[in-house]
Amino acid sequence: MKIEILCTGDEILTGKTVNTNHSYIARRFTDNALQITRGTTVGDDRESLLAAFQQASVRADAVIVNGGLGPTVDDLSQEVAAHAAGVELELYQPWLEKLKKYYESRGRQMPENNTKQAMLPVGCEFIDNPVGTACGFAVTINNARFFFTPGVPHEMRRMINEEILPRILKLSGLTVVTRLKRFHSFGIGESRADQLLRGIEDLAPDNSVKLGFQSHFPQLETKLAAIGKDEETLNATLAPLEARIRQSMGNFILCEDNQTLESEILKALGEVSGTLATIEMTTGGLISQRLNTDQSGSVVCSIVSQNIQQLAQASGLERATLDISSAAEIAIALRRQSASSHSLVSLMVPDEADDSRDFGADVYIALSSPESTVTRKSRLTGGRKWITLGATEMSLDCLRRYLLDLPVDEKIDFEQH
Amino acid sequence: MKIEILCTGDEILTGKTVNTNHSYIARRFTDNALQITRGTTVGDDRESLLAAFQQASVRADAVIVNGGLGPTVDDLSQEVAAHAAGVELELYQPWLEKLKKYYESRGRQMPENNTKQAMLPVGCEFIDNPVGTACGFAVTINNARFFFTPGVPHEMRRMINEEILPRILKLSGLTVVTRLKRFHSFGIGESRADQLLRGIEDLAPDNSVKLGFQSHFPQLETKLAAIGKDEETLNATLAPLEARIRQSMGNFILCEDNQTLESEILKALGEVSGTLATIEMTTGGLISQRLNTDQSGSVVCSIVSQNIQQLAQASGLERATLDISSAAEIAIALRRQSASSHSLVSLMVPDEADDSRDFGADVYIALSSPESTVTRKSRLTGGRKWITLGATEMSLDCLRRYLLDLPVDEKIDFEQH
Repeated sequence: MKIEILCTGDEILTGKTVNTNHSYIARRFTDNALQITRGTTVGDDRESLLAAFQQASVRADAVIVNGGLGPTVDDLSQEVAAHAAGVELELYQPWLEKLKKYYESRGRQMPENNTKQAMLPVGCEFIDNPVGTACGFAVTINNARFFFTPGVPHEMRRMINEEILPRILKLSGLTVVTRLKRFHSFGIGESRADQLLRGIEDLAPDNSVKLGFQSHFPQLETKLAAIGKDEETLNATLAPLEARIRQSMGNFILCEDNQTLESEILKALGEVSGTLATIEMTTGGLISQRLNTDQSGSVVCSIVSQNIQQLAQASGLERATLDISSAAEIAIALRRQSASSHSLVSLMVPDEADDSRDFGADVYIALSSPESTVTRKSRLTGGRKWITLGATEMSLDCLRRYLLDLPVDEKIDFEQH
Repeated sequence: MKIEILCTGDEILTGKTVNTNHSYIARRFTDNALQITRGTTVGDDRESLLAAFQQASVRADAVIVNGGLGPTVDDLSQEVAAHAAGVELELYQPWLEKLKKYYESRGRQMPENNTKQAMLPVGCEFIDNPVGTACGFAVTINNARFFFTPGVPHEMRRMINEEILPRILKLSGLTVVTRLKRFHSFGIGESRADQLLRGIEDLAPDNSVKLGFQSHFPQLETKLAAIGKDEETLNATLAPLEARIRQSMGNFILCEDNQTLESEILKALGEVSGTLATIEMTTGGLISQRLNTDQSGSVVCSIVSQNIQQLAQASGLERATLDISSAAEIAIALRRQSASSHSLVSLMVPDEADDSRDFGADVYIALSSPESTVTRKSRLTGGRKWITLGATEMSLDCLRRYLLDLPVDEKIDFEQH
């Protein structure tokens, strides 16, 4: 089945807005074993839109059109869709009623403009938008079924997942139960993960699972896209592959599916009713920022500086040196100073050199609780931005490992051995 | 002149990578008064590529092709370009020599694969890549001149700016001197800026300047894209428009061109040989992160917490309350505690409610130096993410204003009045 994505709008065409809608739609389809064959972007211009609709209509089986459903004169999708399908536009009364109620509920009268959003091609299939004023619809033009979606990302996402994907899966004749199983890891590069997991797809029958990777440096996402006749089949199909991944990637797996490294840390901290204070040097506040999304109050204080004496003083020490034993001393002092049960100290000492691919840093990490104080020392290279992200991730990963009683000193692919 | 952008590669087509190359290329062209008429994305597939080349070749005057110039078998751009142009590929010896030297200089032998990167269509125009192994080239197919660029962003950017834009400007017959003047502001929304500056383009002769906006919430970028016969003409043309923008947007202008709010703050701090300590509550470490990109050492310490008592204690106070006078007390104490000349305290107190568009926060900001201590109180609404970014920007902007002796309490469009 050939599926195209057609994004409309001057803002995207001219680069004012980066087209994240294409990548979201394409990813959701690919995750469901559907193939995207082309992406097109055109501006808010009748002639270009019509040409793009007509060209796609003879090339593809399904076309997802994104954008151009708004109330203003430069929103042309319904009009051009009707033209291309050879039909008129007509008022879809139920949507007009819904728009009026939407405005009423906010104590406003619906602007006359918005009536346009209830004008749909005669004979089209209405597609609901529960979170916005632009409804979707589907029409057939030549060989292809066209699905129209709003440009506002959260409205588009909901419509794609709840309305369009099920319809396309049905059209495609694929078994309609699909699942995307995800593992998030830190410390194994994409090419090594690819080697480690080679052949894993053969553990599932009939090409029913596809292995994929997505790098979000420094994390790697390992994905299993599975199709099967029902949920039970999926469970049975995926079980041996999941087991193999857990075995191969071991402690490097941070979490699965919608969990995050931060949520794992905060959960583990919550389980021991712990509180945390952090100190970081030269990682630019990234550790603090990652953990301070928490609203539980278990992260009590984060201190950021580029100056080791400031950090020593902030933790209640007279002075400190830049080495691993000093990191441990600061971690112990910080717990006392902040009255927290746990502390994380991350000291990154960048090279005194210009930024380049060889630019590196020594990293001294210390973790402390009433039970123990442990340290991790590492050398990272790869440029300033890269090592800053790497040192941040390594510090947070060490904290996760410490809280879960896992070894904090397993070597990762990104450090010097 | 009709210009299309054609991006190739499975990673972009399937959404694994967000297509930032399209937006970069489109923006650079638009900034130079050139118009993009279509964007296309196809995968690493001979048939799709050839069809896309042929279709674009009869529609456009120029086509920028991005990607597919690598050494592996799925990099097909040269091969398909030659096919579409009806010519063979031939070895371009100078590039092969350069590749060999590049590898030698790194103490490695060039892999045989890379020879492929020196195979170019017969009769094409070679385009240099000073920072990578994929050279560019240009060929004519039907009505259009095709320019081939590498997919690696920093290589593409350099080739677009140094090699391709000048060629296209020449092809377009436009006067080849262009300039993009940029103003970065905080506190004025895009629609109000549009109103304030309406008609400003008329101050320049013959449509030689185009006004544009780009929102990077919470900052707004106001752009003047100018064309003229030489640099002097551009200076004269732009002067009255720049003056009008500075007058209309006043103190809300943070900086111009490549400057940033952070660089302005650090410059102003440097001019008084000042040092800075910061405390932030509930903004998740964003203030700390923004300022800690500095490597001059003038930001001595940043403390982040969600707990006002922790912050009070960290600044050397016994305890504190959540109000504007407490923010001022903390700012004064923090200077003493950290031995810094300046301090910034930003306390955001979010509503006790679920996140929604009406979700808001009270913001208490205090700035202190040996000369004075000033405060700013505000109420922001618009959802948790929005207000967190807004409070961060407002805090940094207040610091800039304080350092530059500008009023810190000018109302902004995003706060409740």
